[in-house]
Amino acid sequence: MRQKYNKTDIIDKGVQLFRTKGYHNTGVDDILKSCGIPSGSFYNFFKNKEGFAVQALELYNQRYHDLLDQLLHNESLTPLQRIKSLFTGNVEMLVKGDCSEGCLLNSMTSEVAALNMTIGATAAEHYQRNAEKLAEAIKDGQDLGEIRTDFTSIELAFYLMDGMAGATVRMQAGKTEKPLKLFIKTAFEFLKPQ
Amino acid sequence: MRQKYNKTDIIDKGVQLFRTKGYHNTGVDDILKSCGIPSGSFYNFFKNKEGFAVQALELYNQRYHDLLDQLLHNESLTPLQRIKSLFTGNVEMLVKGDCSEGCLLNSMTSEVAALNMTIGATAAEHYQRNAEKLAEAIKDGQDLGEIRTDFTSIELAFYLMDGMAGATVRMQAGKTEKPLKLFIKTAFEFLKPQ
Repeated sequence: MRQKYNKTDIIDKGVQLFRTKGYHNTGVDDILKSCGIPSGSFYNFFKNKEGFAVQALELYNQRYHDLLDQLLHNESLTPLQRIKSLFTGNVEMLVKGDCSEGCLLNSMTSEVAALNMTIGATAAEHYQRNAEKLAEAIKDGQDLGEIRTDFTSIELAFYLMDGMAGATVRMQAGKTEKPLKLFIKTAFEFLKPQ
Repeated sequence: MRQKYNKTDIIDKGVQLFRTKGYHNTGVDDILKSCGIPSGSFYNFFKNKEGFAVQALELYNQRYHDLLDQLLHNESLTPLQRIKSLFTGNVEMLVKGDCSEGCLLNSMTSEVAALNMTIGATAAEHYQRNAEKLAEAIKDGQDLGEIRTDFTSIELAFYLMDGMAGATVRMQAGKTEKPLKLFIKTAFEFLKPQ
């Protein structure tokens, strides 16, 4: 009996390929093969590879956003503890992936954004959206006196996201969690009230 | 009259292509075309595209290392001022490149390191070498009381490099210098003695 694939299944398989092999190194054929579907099933949902990538970024980021929402509203933790649990959770996931799978948003940006305006604009929008959500928790932590207030909450949100992104890139070179641990150690030192 | 291309010329053209188009999206044919040379001239110097990439990383990083050497030994500045001039100089170069060209070391790592052990190991070695050079200046700044001493000089060197790398990725999404400016502002705040 032929297996039925829905759009989310195809995106999940494609995201896995993008994260390990890269965007340009993954063809539509690779995605079809990995799903075991004919090309019609792909083009039924996506105009082309770029259209697929934009939808993949959307879905991946929506999930991250949902995770942010959930973690940053955990009432059993203080705002600072929530933020720390978010980043240490990210680190754990990266380590589970053998320190070789980057974040889709950062990998796609680094490889494709300069060339492809559509993907670049989608990525920029997601960075902004994630930072705004994170900034809400930072603001709560600032109001409680847990987090420094000489930088705005959105500045600190981008500071955390960029630091994590840079550590993740270097992690991939040496396949080691050391950069991630250093990020956690320095970033949460930086957040302390002055 | 036929133009003579040397190895460095070919690497420079290839690096330009890697930085704007990415590794997998640049074929040996693209490099040949961009240099206007026959394939023999390429394979005379390089075994294949991977061999080319490793040599490109070596040359690019040697130049960065020479720049580090020069800037970090500028006796007219204090160690902290030298480090700041290095990073603000990097920012200026990225802005000149319309905020769309990433750093070769980071872009190659993000796209290729997880797949290609040779390139990954080369990148890891370069990160270490750059950090050690930068740490020398940080140590001098620590000894002079200009830089915090509750982190080691090598930790602070990697902290700066990773923060810059993350800001550079996000710069490429929005084609804006804002992430770079935020990096300078936060990173040099972080270095202050506690």
